[in-house]
Amino acid sequence: MNLATNVLLILDVIGVLAFALTGMVEGVRKGADLFGIGFLAFVTAFGGGTVRDLLLDRRPFFWVENEFWLWLLIGIAILAPFILRSRFIEITEKTVRWPDAVGLGAFSANGTLIALESGESVLVAALIGVVTAGVGGIIRDLLINRLPQAIVDHEFYLVIALGGGLSISLFGSMGMPLAWAAVLAALLVTMGRMLSMIRGWKLPPIA
Amino acid sequence: MNLATNVLLILDVIGVLAFALTGMVEGVRKGADLFGIGFLAFVTAFGGGTVRDLLLDRRPFFWVENEFWLWLLIGIAILAPFILRSRFIEITEKTVRWPDAVGLGAFSANGTLIALESGESVLVAALIGVVTAGVGGIIRDLLINRLPQAIVDHEFYLVIALGGGLSISLFGSMGMPLAWAAVLAALLVTMGRMLSMIRGWKLPPIA
Amino acid sequence: MNLATNVLLILDVIGVLAFALTGMVEGVRKGADLFGIGFLAFVTAFGGGTVRDLLLDRRPFFWVENEFWLWLLIGIAILAPFILRSRFIEITEKTVRWPDAVGLGAFSANGTLIALESGESVLVAALIGVVTAGVGGIIRDLLINRLPQAIVDHEFYLVIALGGGLSISLFGSMGMPLAWAAVLAALLVTMGRMLSMIRGWKLPPIA
Repeated sequence: MNLATNVLLILDVIGVLAFALTGMVEGVRKGADLFGIGFLAFVTAFGGGTVRDLLLDRRPFFWVENEFWLWLLIGIAILAPFILRSRFIEITEKTVRWPDAVGLGAFSANGTLIALESGESVLVAALIGVVTAGVGGIIRDLLINRLPQAIVDHEFYLVIALGGGLSISLFGSMGMPLAWAAVLAALLVTMGRMLSMIRGWKLPPIA
Repeated sequence: MNLATNVLLILDVIGVLAFALTGMVEGVRKGADLFGIGFLAFVTAFGGGTVRDLLLDRRPFFWVENEFWLWLLIGIAILAPFILRSRFIEITEKTVRWPDAVGLGAFSANGTLIALESGESVLVAALIGVVTAGVGGIIRDLLINRLPQAIVDHEFYLVIALGGGLSISLFGSMGMPLAWAAVLAALLVTMGRMLSMIRGWKLPPIA
Repeated sequence: MNLATNVLLILDVIGVLAFALTGMVEGVRKGADLFGIGFLAFVTAFGGGTVRDLLLDRRPFFWVENEFWLWLLIGIAILAPFILRSRFIEITEKTVRWPDAVGLGAFSANGTLIALESGESVLVAALIGVVTAGVGGIIRDLLINRLPQAIVDHEFYLVIALGGGLSISLFGSMGMPLAWAAVLAALLVTMGRMLSMIRGWKLPPIA
């Protein structure tokens, strides 16, 4: 197991946990039952990576190949009621935005790195990173019947993921090992997303 | 053609017919036109099996490989207006629940059995059964723009499919041939679902 | 590069451009931001072809294999604000129907021709043409949270695509080269769709 493999695994764990959390929180907000919440967590956490594997023709899918992922999700589902009932977390519309920013960074870096290692070009690899980071949340929003936030909210979101993906190739061309470049890009994307949330930056209207 | 192949085929036919019927009924309720109804029947009937084949990397897809399925669906579509116009069936929100329960049993058993025969583990196979049984209905609900019932209605639904999938491995470990275990599981899931509908059992709220 | 390859490429370019335009227009109407509009254009333009490649097991996907498509889309996205701000195009609910008719013809012919060349039967090939033509618009409608127009509006839409796909095999059986038959079918579908829009033809209610 080399450096890149370790980095990819760590980014995957962080992204899966962060997006599973956002799926659970939205499920609770919508009054879903235990299995509905588990299902939402499942598709939000694994949706992006599954589409990534589909696009790159990697089989079997990562969660079919390695049961570790399913046990991780079952563990989360068992802990969830205790976490969500506690008074420490207030469940509001904005609660999910913080873990979502973490997942955005982890998955955009992860998707781009895997695509680059599969021999894809700089642009295709960055777009696969965007898809890996964005698809889970879009499916989650569709399942709870709201307009996908990534599309309509005029915030810096997918554009930050795109910038992060492109930056991996940039750092790589400057001599940095791609695995470290991915770690750096994940941090930059998460921090950039959080900063834009705090500052309330908006994209300009188009027309 | 051995026993398992026959059982899989029969479960597929039952599941496809049952879910196609639910898609048609919802299409009629939404005022869709003939081709809209045919399309809803198509995705509801074939959605789960197509995602199953995708996850297990089985190609070509079952309805691409064998045209029998398409002719079956065309036959249903031609008969549909006569069935749905008759006074014997009253089209209400609850009408679809009975064929849906039959499809749930057939597809959860079918998906789990195929996955077990492909060498997947007990847990992964049962989850692929849940996906095979659940995806068609979730796509159907999304296309008619309502919250997926499987997620929000607090009824015993996907959890019964999961139990059925796990029971196939359990019966198998007790010495029963897997094909018979799948038939038994399909019956148990359908009966369990119908019983929970009649009794009005609900899952407890999570938070 | 033979005749069929050229025809397929031209139909692809026309279909991608036409459907990308419909995605952009709907994005503007929903008040999406620049990246939301780009994403809607992307899934509307590439959704159908990606599902087609998935069903026929063609890898890598056409837009992963050939970056030309991505640069085309980026070009459209850069030009979009100028086009959409101009006074020449009025953005109404009906604006998208004209490019949509062009995309319907191009993609139904393209999908059917590729499927026939992959050895699929007449019926399966025509249905893959319908899927190629219809999936992009259905995903677009789902993402902007409305009932898919192809299913509920009672207009002649998917049925025309189906007729066009079947006509390719019919023309072929009469001795016409399949590539020319596809060009003819694309023209017939687009003209048939536009004629049915102008005349306001409706499918009869089913029940």
